[in-house]
Amino acid sequence: MEREINSNHQPAGNETRLRVRYAETDQMGVVYHSNHLIWFEVGRVELMRRMGFSSRAMERDDERFIAVAEVTCRYRAPVYYDDEALIRTRLKTVRESVVVF
Amino acid sequence: MEREINSNHQPAGNETRLRVRYAETDQMGVVYHSNHLIWFEVGRVELMRRMGFSSRAMERDDERFIAVAEVTCRYRAPVYYDDEALIRTRLKTVRESVVVF
Amino acid sequence: MEREINSNHQPAGNETRLRVRYAETDQMGVVYHSNHLIWFEVGRVELMRRMGFSSRAMERDDERFIAVAEVTCRYRAPVYYDDEALIRTRLKTVRESVVVF
Amino acid sequence: MEREINSNHQPAGNETRLRVRYAETDQMGVVYHSNHLIWFEVGRVELMRRMGFSSRAMERDDERFIAVAEVTCRYRAPVYYDDEALIRTRLKTVRESVVVF
Repeated sequence: MEREINSNHQPAGNETRLRVRYAETDQMGVVYHSNHLIWFEVGRVELMRRMGFSSRAMERDDERFIAVAEVTCRYRAPVYYDDEALIRTRLKTVRESVVVF
Repeated sequence: MEREINSNHQPAGNETRLRVRYAETDQMGVVYHSNHLIWFEVGRVELMRRMGFSSRAMERDDERFIAVAEVTCRYRAPVYYDDEALIRTRLKTVRESVVVF
Repeated sequence: MEREINSNHQPAGNETRLRVRYAETDQMGVVYHSNHLIWFEVGRVELMRRMGFSSRAMERDDERFIAVAEVTCRYRAPVYYDDEALIRTRLKTVRESVVVF
Repeated sequence: MEREINSNHQPAGNETRLRVRYAETDQMGVVYHSNHLIWFEVGRVELMRRMGFSSRAMERDDERFIAVAEVTCRYRAPVYYDDEALIRTRLKTVRESVVVF
């Protein structure tokens, strides 16, 4: 069965809010920098869900997986425990087998 | 300033829902067993928040910290990616410096 | 192919050392309490390796998995960033399908 | 007390080996992509240690912290459970308050 991310459909952007967990902090008193990548993934999953696309079903039924090929993150402000973080996810490009967020 | 967890106030129990993240799975295809402990903490924080008690403010203003002294977890069923997990938190005992969830 | 953990063979105990990572700390300045469970697993894997048993090969070749059914941890002392932690792992009981560490 | 990373001193590069933990895998059967950032930090800490510089002491004694301002990671090959990963760390630039690895 074919599943498609159709970039003509709205929304191609999404906002997800999540509460910062204690486990995500480090001894500097801020969120440890690798956790932002996990949040980005939460944002991507939610964006895909809103576009009618379940990454879970895709993995289970189609045995297709989305592998992250590259990440870049600039940390402009520290994020603190118990903050409500806002994750903005935008779909930039969809090509045959590459999706750029 | 004194802050108190008053166990006479309701609620002394709470339910928190959270969506299982991809990062929380392992190659067995289920949630890795240490993540449940992180969720329990999320539940405790939410329970305390509903009881009018901010662990964040306590740490910042009073320089008091809640350290976990012991955990026990029995894994009765696997939890899967993208599941909505339900965390039930109950306050069991409050003594001078020990809180049992 | 059969693989066995033969508890008659020595060693049934192991010591593993690992350096505490920055990512493992939390804002209390100590190792966040769920990470100890990850270390215990590191210890179990090393113990099994020394007993001639590869959990990786077992998963890949035999499609058998070791699921953690229960954990208990008492935190007797805080562990700090950059500490060298010593993980002592002992095999306690091996029954048909249950291994107790 | 002043501590300096003196880039004239050798080595300005380091190799660290670490064994991939089960907890670091995800249900795709490979290391989850945020963990590579944690390993990079392990590499940086080891490099600094070999240059005679303890990030732990710096934090404790000088109350100075190294915050990650930006990361980029290209994932060229999957890393598997129980692999021995080799982390190559190189010091590229040291300016007054910015260190580029």
